[in-house]
Amino acid sequence: MSVTAAQGFTAAGIAAGIKENGNPDLALVVNNGPRRAAAGVFTSNRVKAAPVLWSEQVLKSRQLAAVVLNSGGANACTGPKGFQDTHATAEKTADVLGIGAGEVAVCSTGLIGVLLPMDKLLPGVETAAAGLSEHGGEKAAIAIKTTDTVHKTSVVTNAGWTVGGMAKGAGMLAPGLATMLVVLTTDADVAAGDLDRALRAATRVTFDRVDSDGCMSTNDTVLLLASGASGITPEYDAFAEAVRAVCDDLGQQLIRDAEGASKDIRIEVVNAETEEDAVLVGRSIARNNLLKCAIHGEDPNWGRVLSAIGTTSAVFEPDRLNVAINGVWVCKNGGVGEDRELVDMRYREVHIVADLAAGSETATIWTNDLTADYVHENSAYSS
Amino acid sequence: MSVTAAQGFTAAGIAAGIKENGNPDLALVVNNGPRRAAAGVFTSNRVKAAPVLWSEQVLKSRQLAAVVLNSGGANACTGPKGFQDTHATAEKTADVLGIGAGEVAVCSTGLIGVLLPMDKLLPGVETAAAGLSEHGGEKAAIAIKTTDTVHKTSVVTNAGWTVGGMAKGAGMLAPGLATMLVVLTTDADVAAGDLDRALRAATRVTFDRVDSDGCMSTNDTVLLLASGASGITPEYDAFAEAVRAVCDDLGQQLIRDAEGASKDIRIEVVNAETEEDAVLVGRSIARNNLLKCAIHGEDPNWGRVLSAIGTTSAVFEPDRLNVAINGVWVCKNGGVGEDRELVDMRYREVHIVADLAAGSETATIWTNDLTADYVHENSAYSS
Repeated sequence: MSVTAAQGFTAAGIAAGIKENGNPDLALVVNNGPRRAAAGVFTSNRVKAAPVLWSEQVLKSRQLAAVVLNSGGANACTGPKGFQDTHATAEKTADVLGIGAGEVAVCSTGLIGVLLPMDKLLPGVETAAAGLSEHGGEKAAIAIKTTDTVHKTSVVTNAGWTVGGMAKGAGMLAPGLATMLVVLTTDADVAAGDLDRALRAATRVTFDRVDSDGCMSTNDTVLLLASGASGITPEYDAFAEAVRAVCDDLGQQLIRDAEGASKDIRIEVVNAETEEDAVLVGRSIARNNLLKCAIHGEDPNWGRVLSAIGTTSAVFEPDRLNVAINGVWVCKNGGVGEDRELVDMRYREVHIVADLAAGSETATIWTNDLTADYVHENSAYSS
Repeated sequence: MSVTAAQGFTAAGIAAGIKENGNPDLALVVNNGPRRAAAGVFTSNRVKAAPVLWSEQVLKSRQLAAVVLNSGGANACTGPKGFQDTHATAEKTADVLGIGAGEVAVCSTGLIGVLLPMDKLLPGVETAAAGLSEHGGEKAAIAIKTTDTVHKTSVVTNAGWTVGGMAKGAGMLAPGLATMLVVLTTDADVAAGDLDRALRAATRVTFDRVDSDGCMSTNDTVLLLASGASGITPEYDAFAEAVRAVCDDLGQQLIRDAEGASKDIRIEVVNAETEEDAVLVGRSIARNNLLKCAIHGEDPNWGRVLSAIGTTSAVFEPDRLNVAINGVWVCKNGGVGEDRELVDMRYREVHIVADLAAGSETATIWTNDLTADYVHENSAYSS
């Protein structure tokens, strides 16, 4: 159901010919109202793609009527011409929909440093607009895939109102903010300020804590559009929880589809002095290539966990650290704990608990293993 | 020639049975004086192995008479028993050499979280002491290898005095300080203060800028021992330059032997506002798994270089960045530059220049590509 699960939205996904292989590559999501409140979070990478620069600008009005997304090219590091192309894409979308270009967000994903084939993209916008449908959410989700093996959608429905969304991403994920393209929609009648607050609260503990390979994208975008079509204004907390749940679900789907991964790793840092410390340690563990290789080899190599913790500035004493892998406390008080032979690592899910013994705060980071398939996929990506 | 190139030193390398495969695993380096000044730098990982904690202590006297090194076990995360084992190793070495344990540094390398087989190590110290020789430097360098495919030595000789050394390390390298085990010796008559100053100056621009896989070890140690046996006290600058040259040579050997690597990558950051910015950007590029995979695939993917630069806090404007790969300026002013097809990537050496256009400072970081062999080696390491 994706972005059309909520009332007031139509969507489409088509093959415009941007991708040479003929796969779907252009998606359109339209908010038919009655309200058009919107919020967005974007990559914190300082090298931002043209569509990110554009969408940040248009979101200052806190209103969006439509989002146009393309795969097959990131339109990043493409200079003034790239920005003109994004602008032209928004103008074209506005023209065919009878709205203003300042109400159109643009998202692009694919290779960096290549100009988009505008002679295919602009006619594609017309085709997509002609195909807009209340059932188009699935097709839109398919059209934004790049190396994704599956498309990703999620829906949470409450009493009379819904939050739904779609995401693309398969590795190349890292905290920056969003780490992928995501469009969320709701028919709840929520003001832009609360949308923004709920979205930032949700991304902070979901997408921001998904760290597949430590590489922050130039194009990451998460948008939340509210149509108000349900006529219901939920309690803020219930609404924020629904947004968080959809973000969490989509974030999990992104990790499960990470390039070449064979293990999904949940890193839970407990008893930290601060939440910041917990995130810092979780991220350090998640980015340790040696550990990620060990997990791939089903080796409960807790020494590499301790080594990763030791590189951080978090509050802890080395001889009080404890580490559990899949429920077995293989490291106790900084040294050898329970027998590592007891750790069962045959399954895709791997759960690491790092106990800092320094307080009561906690955070969870999701990552995946490092595999030869990851190397293969990313050494052949642009060829 | 290694650590015995300088006068006043003897060394040995033997198989004590610490490694199950019977390969050499114990090395001894002895400073026979007349002076015994010493300096050391250690990992900045806060989870430090027992031998690091020990050697930091004994170096407070700024004197070392001997260094005992073992491969086959890191003696890290081994609790109080691990520290006792290090202490016992130093005591045994002191006994057989007729010196004090407080003059003996200990270095260990291998798996984390496993106690050393002291019943094999201590008799090994006796055997090694019996085999000490002025020609033992090569054997010592061989005995400290773990996954190293070659042993690493380097010597610089000046008018009447020499600086030589040995190193072990093959990937698992990252800045922390030393990033490996290195013992340097000199027969120059240099006071401990100048030794320390020269060593820190050298490691800052050599080992500290070698970043194979971003993973900082618990055991990294670089020691510099001066015997004064040449009777010559060189000018400080000449001495410091000799130490830097040996560190640089050993650092390059470490990168060339990095686990599974097929490309040696030299990342030169130029026109940075500060040297710190240059190092920060160089390290961010060096740690970008996506770029390292692309280089492996001989793909001059400059977008990944820009993406890595964008994650830093260095001073730069995105639309003024320039990137050259093997001499071709593939990115100019943040966008497409010269034709990427012109880049010849067939050779092992890859040279990336990142021009920040923000000042006049520069720094070079050395790294290597990310390969399926790296994944294989590190997913099977402990099994």
